[in-house]
This record gives sequence, structure tokens and C-alpha cells, in this order.
Amino acid sequence: MAADPRFFPAGSALTLAEAAAAAGGELVGGDPELPITGVGPLQSAGPAEVSFLDNRRYAGQLAITQAAAVVLAPEMLAKLPEGRAAIVTPHPYLGFGRIARALHPAAAPRPGIHPSAVVDASARIGQGVEVGPLAVIEAGAEIGAGCIIGPHAVIGAGVVLGEGCRIGAHTSLSHCIAGRQVVLHPGARVGQEGFGFAVTPEGRFETMPQLGRVLLGDFVELGANACVDRGSQTDTVLGAGTRLDNMVQIGHNVSTGKGCVLVAQVGIAGSTRLGNGVQMGGQSGISGHVEIGDRAQVAAQSGVMSDVAPGEVVGGSPAWPMRETLRAFAALRKLAGTKPPAKPTP
Amino acid sequence: MAADPRFFPAGSALTLAEAAAAAGGELVGGDPELPITGVGPLQSAGPAEVSFLDNRRYAGQLAITQAAAVVLAPEMLAKLPEGRAAIVTPHPYLGFGRIARALHPAAAPRPGIHPSAVVDASARIGQGVEVGPLAVIEAGAEIGAGCIIGPHAVIGAGVVLGEGCRIGAHTSLSHCIAGRQVVLHPGARVGQEGFGFAVTPEGRFETMPQLGRVLLGDFVELGANACVDRGSQTDTVLGAGTRLDNMVQIGHNVSTGKGCVLVAQVGIAGSTRLGNGVQMGGQSGISGHVEIGDRAQVAAQSGVMSDVAPGEVVGGSPAWPMRETLRAFAALRKLAGTKPPAKPTP
Amino acid sequence: MAADPRFFPAGSALTLAEAAAAAGGELVGGDPELPITGVGPLQSAGPAEVSFLDNRRYAGQLAITQAAAVVLAPEMLAKLPEGRAAIVTPHPYLGFGRIARALHPAAAPRPGIHPSAVVDASARIGQGVEVGPLAVIEAGAEIGAGCIIGPHAVIGAGVVLGEGCRIGAHTSLSHCIAGRQVVLHPGARVGQEGFGFAVTPEGRFETMPQLGRVLLGDFVELGANACVDRGSQTDTVLGAGTRLDNMVQIGHNVSTGKGCVLVAQVGIAGSTRLGNGVQMGGQSGISGHVEIGDRAQVAAQSGVMSDVAPGEVVGGSPAWPMRETLRAFAALRKLAGTKPPAKPTP
Repeated sequence: MAADPRFFPAGSALTLAEAAAAAGGELVGGDPELPITGVGPLQSAGPAEVSFLDNRRYAGQLAITQAAAVVLAPEMLAKLPEGRAAIVTPHPYLGFGRIARALHPAAAPRPGIHPSAVVDASARIGQGVEVGPLAVIEAGAEIGAGCIIGPHAVIGAGVVLGEGCRIGAHTSLSHCIAGRQVVLHPGARVGQEGFGFAVTPEGRFETMPQLGRVLLGDFVELGANACVDRGSQTDTVLGAGTRLDNMVQIGHNVSTGKGCVLVAQVGIAGSTRLGNGVQMGGQSGISGHVEIGDRAQVAAQSGVMSDVAPGEVVGGSPAWPMRETLRAFAALRKLAGTKPPAKPTP
Repeated sequence: MAADPRFFPAGSALTLAEAAAAAGGELVGGDPELPITGVGPLQSAGPAEVSFLDNRRYAGQLAITQAAAVVLAPEMLAKLPEGRAAIVTPHPYLGFGRIARALHPAAAPRPGIHPSAVVDASARIGQGVEVGPLAVIEAGAEIGAGCIIGPHAVIGAGVVLGEGCRIGAHTSLSHCIAGRQVVLHPGARVGQEGFGFAVTPEGRFETMPQLGRVLLGDFVELGANACVDRGSQTDTVLGAGTRLDNMVQIGHNVSTGKGCVLVAQVGIAGSTRLGNGVQMGGQSGISGHVEIGDRAQVAAQSGVMSDVAPGEVVGGSPAWPMRETLRAFAALRKLAGTKPPAKPTP
Repeated sequence: MAADPRFFPAGSALTLAEAAAAAGGELVGGDPELPITGVGPLQSAGPAEVSFLDNRRYAGQLAITQAAAVVLAPEMLAKLPEGRAAIVTPHPYLGFGRIARALHPAAAPRPGIHPSAVVDASARIGQGVEVGPLAVIEAGAEIGAGCIIGPHAVIGAGVVLGEGCRIGAHTSLSHCIAGRQVVLHPGARVGQEGFGFAVTPEGRFETMPQLGRVLLGDFVELGANACVDRGSQTDTVLGAGTRLDNMVQIGHNVSTGKGCVLVAQVGIAGSTRLGNGVQMGGQSGISGHVEIGDRAQVAAQSGVMSDVAPGEVVGGSPAWPMRETLRAFAALRKLAGTKPPAKPTP
């Protein structure tokens, strides 16, 4: 399936040799001068498109693909039918992505401020910034060079964005310092008041002033409608390269290390700290004031209520070490007289 | 309780006979010329209002209702007290809804483009379209006849909407082709980038270009703040009549058949495929690359990690066939020395 | 850590004596005339800042804090090192919050309607109201004195807001009557159509007209991207002082009593009723048509499918009384030959 030109304007085609170079791979077979106009999955890529094989489960599709060439790992080359071309690299998925990006570069900013945008006179707008229709940029905000501020985005007073950020439609940011190339997808909420209050002797709730900020490291990405509350007295921090999928919830004072991956609808309660490279499956949660070690993994839908050691894999609600959870479910299933459970995956 | 006229302008009243006709039912007893001005539940409907009985649990309320007439099924007619009126139909809830709709028709579009809206010169706006204040319609978008585009909605470049769509406040659509009478409630997000990236040898994440679209079938409805990511190489597809409640998450490349019902806060991970008529309870989830058969049912909060056969009912996290899950919980409860569990419902 | 002046303009400093008065506490030791410029946690508060101790777990930090004074309870005074100052009150967290608020008052409305806002001529705007850029206020809406309407907020036709409400960026309200000092954080959705439909004999879904409203009591607060659907025939009601964290979902016809606390990503299905002071942990859910008694507690991630008595504590999915759930998990863990579970907390 070629990309719909209504949404993905065709760039210049690459030659097959250029595609291999973009992928950082070696072309094996095929005409180096063949024009490549798109990418696609093995089963639907056309003769002017490049495909990829990253999972040996799908190796059978090599026999039927029409693709001009398949990006694959050296050990899969033997499975390629006679007369077909390959781009060989130890990182086929990455290489394939780079070919796709070369064919369909991300939209560059169209510098200028749309006349309908409301930009405070004291805001500092960097070079080459695009400010979309009806965006609002409040007093004292600083927008780094080359940022794209989408339609209806609201950049609150004093917010700082580094260079090259892409801020989606309908997003709001306040009390936030962001690094460079930070991406917010539509509807993401950053810097609003955290959920903190004291109870009066009469039983009423009084909001605790939330006096911290949100610090977003370079390359951080937030999914659509995701929420990151600002800190109460310390800051809420997302380490460089951390990615949040849609509707992830980050409570006040939470911090993550670098390169964490939080899948859709994850929730992290206040003051919990994640190390580097932590991965959390969809709909999982962590309660407040907990420490999660580097590279720990939390299975989808599980609920973590105590510290997790570096590298540990936990699952279930309450979350236990994954092996114990699997054993417990197997035991339960046996007790109930049924077959062994399907194996949960993190 | 009569509908608040501040929000629901009273239409013309119906006669009781007209109400019966709207319901597709037969009037039994009552004055056919009686003016009906509203609808209401059995316990609060007034003497100029129509009510309904759909669940025999509530049959006792027939004795006390003040309603002008009760829409009910033939087999409930015997329970109606002497001297009361009924509208008899095999589909009382549907019939009641049609009377309510006749009394309170959905707001028709008020054709015209609000002067504050930002509409690209190349967008094609169909006949009778209402474009609300501060809406944005980008280059090349096509808006079908009779659509209502709410305040602050953003219709991205090239997006196509069929006839009669209702697009709520603060929604965003990009990379999307929608059929007719599609409804988006406020804050729904359609067509943003999916959550896909490759890892470089240095451990950094690189976004995989997301080159697919979102295809929304006729009559599809998305709840407030729901999110539907566009496909990566194929399309994300919601079949005709499928309804998503608030804050449902649909990952890239997911497809559903016709008439699926996904209750609030459901999440479906990438590339999973649902058949026709699949129902998922609130806060349930399905992992990626899984097949769910026609008319399967997934209980609230359950987590599906493997294929589900057509018509199967599954529950629990991890989800097992509902009967096994119930047996397992019963066994667990017995083991712990407690009473049998309350019966979960899908 | 002092509050970042880019986001929290320094108010006038308090003297230590004024701080004690703001906290409703007694100053013990310290110079009553010492200027206090901020607040902070024990381990990072500076010598011109006030801190607090609310949990005896952290009493050890009293030995090392640099704070000018520590707000604490009478029984902790003995643990204060020689020569340090305290503000003594039976409610240290509350007192501390009041000092923080005195130093950093909530932003007052800047009266006036931004020229880019779209306000219908028939809307009634109270005294001293601030209407932000690009906000939309529709026909017949009534905005109470001293409200702050944020940028891009949409106040639907006929909506009524009491005095002193703070309505965040990108929020939408329709079909809603709100009391005074109601707070909506960015992206909150109030009053949209509930998820209700009838099935036709042909198997199509027809939306049931949703003819109720949303009633928000005084001091109600909704988190970012939270959703409250309007009632179908009755109203959806949130009792005075009830607080919803981010992305909480409230179905049509739900009602809560006063002072309920619903943590992030909670979901409550249609027509369920909560008493006063009910607390629900993050990601928990309640199915439809259920009654939850006063001051009941629902643990994080649990799933309630039947009535809960006043004061009861429930957990698990399906939710059982917490003690039974804990016993069941302990039994399961023993069965699987592992250590006893970490203790879940509500």
C-alpha cells in the first residue's frame, strides 16, 4: 500500500542504492539504479517499494513479496528466494524506518506566526518558528528555533521550549521547561496543578499550592491526551528520550530516568521514581512514593505497590515478580480444574 | 423530570397517538389526542410525559407511575394497572428513544462559517455545513453536506468527512477518511502518529514514520477524549456503526468490524483485529497482534493476550474463558475460607 | 528549592510570626520577625523557608533541615533539635499549606474579555470576570462574578457557573449548572452526551436522547482531561467538594455525595451512586447501577460490581472486602510456593 498522497506528499524517489545507504545496509542483488517510491509490509509492498523482515515468524512471506528489496538481518539472507534483492543490516527495523523517513521526511516548520494566533509581546520566538492558527503564547514564554506550535496550542507564561520541538494541536503547557526536539501529540496536558490537598478539621479539602515545575528532557514525547502534572515542591521530571503513549498519567513529583517507555493508559502516582530504561505495559500503574530500578519491566495492567529492583520483571495486580505471578496463575488454574494459562507477556 | 428548557428547547408536542406512531407501537388505552410534552423514568414522569418499561425488575413501578403512557412489550401488558395507557411494541427501549427524539430532535446545522473560523481556501465545504467559532479547516480538507464542525475543532489537511458528521468542540482529526454521520465528542483525537519507534545501536529511540490513515465507517462514534492513532503502514479502521465511549485508546493498525461497542477507558494495542459486533467492558484491554472473533465479549477490566474465538466470552487479567475465570475465583475464595464471589458480568 | 519566579511571582514575604498565624499554630523558638520567603521539603528548605513534618517516618530529617521553622504536631516537638524553631499545630500539613498559600496566593482574575474571545450577546458575564483569549461563551450562558475562563475554553449555551470558578484552558462545558469556586483543569469535558443507545431489529445502534444535565456542587474540582457525561433522563451530580483527578470518567446519571475523592483514571459506569466521602484509588472502576455507601474505600485498580456498605474497604477485581482479598492472595501465593504478598493498600 502506497502512502496516501493526500496526507503524505511524495518526496523525491530514492534509487535502491540510496535506500540501502539510508538504511546503513548492504545491497545484495537488485538494480542499484531502480527508483524506490515507497515502503510497505511484505505482503503488500509493490515492485517500487522496499519492505523489511524483523521477525523470523514472517520469513515465509519472503517467498511471496513483490517488494523491490527487503531489509533484513544477515542470518535471514539464506531464506531469500533466488533472484530477489535484500538490504542487509544487523538492524533491519531501524534501517527500514530510515528509508521510510528519507522518502517521507517530517514536515519542516513553515516559519511565521499565523495572524489569528495570540502571542504576548514579551514572548521570545526563535528563528524559523511556525506558530499555527489560534495558538496562544503567553507572557515571557521562550520558543526555541525551529519549533512548530500547532493550531490552538496554549504555551503558558514563562514556559521554555528548546529547539525543534513539535507541539500538537490543542495542547497546553504551563510551568514547564522543555529541552530540544520534544514532541507533544494533540491534547497533551503539561504543568497543571497536581492532585494535592489537605483536610480541614471540618472535613473540607484545601488545595496545597503546587509550587514545582515540569522538566522535560531532550527528545521526550507525550502521546495524545497524556497528562503530566507539575510538582508540588520539587519538580516533575521526564528524562531525555522518555516516551509516553496516549492518555498516560504522570502525578506530581514523579521522575523518570532516560529512555523510559510507558504504553497507553499507564498511571504513575505522586513522587514515584523510575530509573533509566524502565518499560511499562498498557494500563499498568504504580502507586506513590515507590522506586523502580533501571531497566525494570512492568507487565500490562499490573499494579506495582512496592519498590522494584533494577532489571526485575513484575506483573499482576498486586504486582509480583513475573515468575511468581505465572506460577500463581498456573496453580489457580489447576485448582479450578482448567488448562494451564496463556503466558502473559510484559 | 422534564428536560431543562435552557438546554433542550421544547419542540412541538406530540399527541399520544403520534407518540405511539413514532415508537412503532400500538396505543392501548389512553386518549389518542392527549398532548405529550416530554419523557421520563417511571418514578418521575408526569401526566404529560411518556415512560417505558424494559426490564421486568421494574414492573412494580407500573403501579405508581404518573406517566401518560408506558412503552412496554406485549408480555408486560398484563401487569399494567386498570385505567392506565400503554404503547405496546416488542422493542420498548428503542420505541421510547424514538419518542424522545421526536420531542427533542438533534440540533440541525445552522449553515455558515463563523467569521472567527480559519478555513483554508482550498478546503471544500459542502452544502449546509455549520463551521463553529474558531474552528480550523486545513488545506484540501473536504467537509460533506450538513456537517456540524464544533468550536475549536481542527480538521487537518486532506481529511475527508462524509455527509452529516457532527464534530465536537476541541476535537482534532488528521490523516483520516470518515464516512457519513460520524460523531466525535469533545476532545476526541483522530489520526495522530502511532506509538512506534526503532532502537538505535546506541539505545536511542527513532520514530518510525507512521504512513497509514484512519478510516472511520458510517455512523462511527467516538467518545470524549478518545484517541485513534493512524496506521503505520496499513490503516487503522473502525467498521460502520462502531461506538467508542470516552477515553478509549485505539493503537495503530487496529481494525474493528461493524457495530463493535467499546466502553470507557478500553485500550487496544497495535495491529489487533476485532470482528463484527465485539463488545468490551470498561477499562479492559487487548494486547497487540491478536484476533478477536465476531460477537466475542470481553468483561470489564480484563486483559486479553491471545486470540478469542467468535462468540466467546472472556474475563480476568489475564483473560480466560469466563466460566474458567469464575471457577478459578470461586476456588480461590474457597481456599481463602470466604464466601463465594459475587458474579462478575461482562 | 525556592519556587521558580518565572512561574510563581514572589509575593510579599511573611515574618515568621505571620507565618505561624497563617498556619493557625504556635511559634516555638525562632525570631518572630525573621522574613520568610518560601516553603520547601525538610531536606531542601533554606534558612528563609518554612517546612513541615506530617509523618513520623521522616522525623529523622528534623536533625538536618535548614528550614527557618518546621510546622509539626505537638507530639513531635520533643524530636526537634535544640535551637530550632517550630510552628506547632494539630494539623501540620494544612497549616503548612496555608503558609504556602499566603506566600503564593492563587492568581486573581484580571477582569475583562480578551478581544479574541467569542462571547454571545445574550451571555451574562458577572462582575470582575476574566475571559481569556479565544474562549467561546455561547448564548444564554451565565458566568458568576470573579470567574476565570481560560484560553480556548468553550462554555456552552445556557451553562451556569457560580462565583469564583476557575475554568482551565481547552475545557468544554455544556448542559451544566455549576456552583461556586468550581475548578476545571485543562481539557476537562463536562456535559457531553452519555454512552446510551438502543439496538434496532436490524442490529443498528440508535442514540438515546440524553436529556439530563450535569450538576456540579460548590468547590468541585475536575482534573485534566477528565470526563463527566450528562444524564440521560435524570442528572449527573457531583456533590460539593468532590475532587476528580486527571482522566477520571463519570458516566451518565452517576451521582456522588459530598467530598468524594477519585484518583486518576478511575471510571464509574452509568447510574451508579456514591455516598459522601467515598475514596477510590487510581485506575479502579465501578460498574453501572451500583450503590456505594458513605466513606467506603475502593483500592487502586479494583473493580466493584456490587453494592458496598458504608465504611467498607474493598479491593481486587472483582472487588471483595479487603481482608478477604488479602487472604485470597496470601493463599494463592502459598499455593504457588512463594513468599507472602506485599500488602496492598487502599
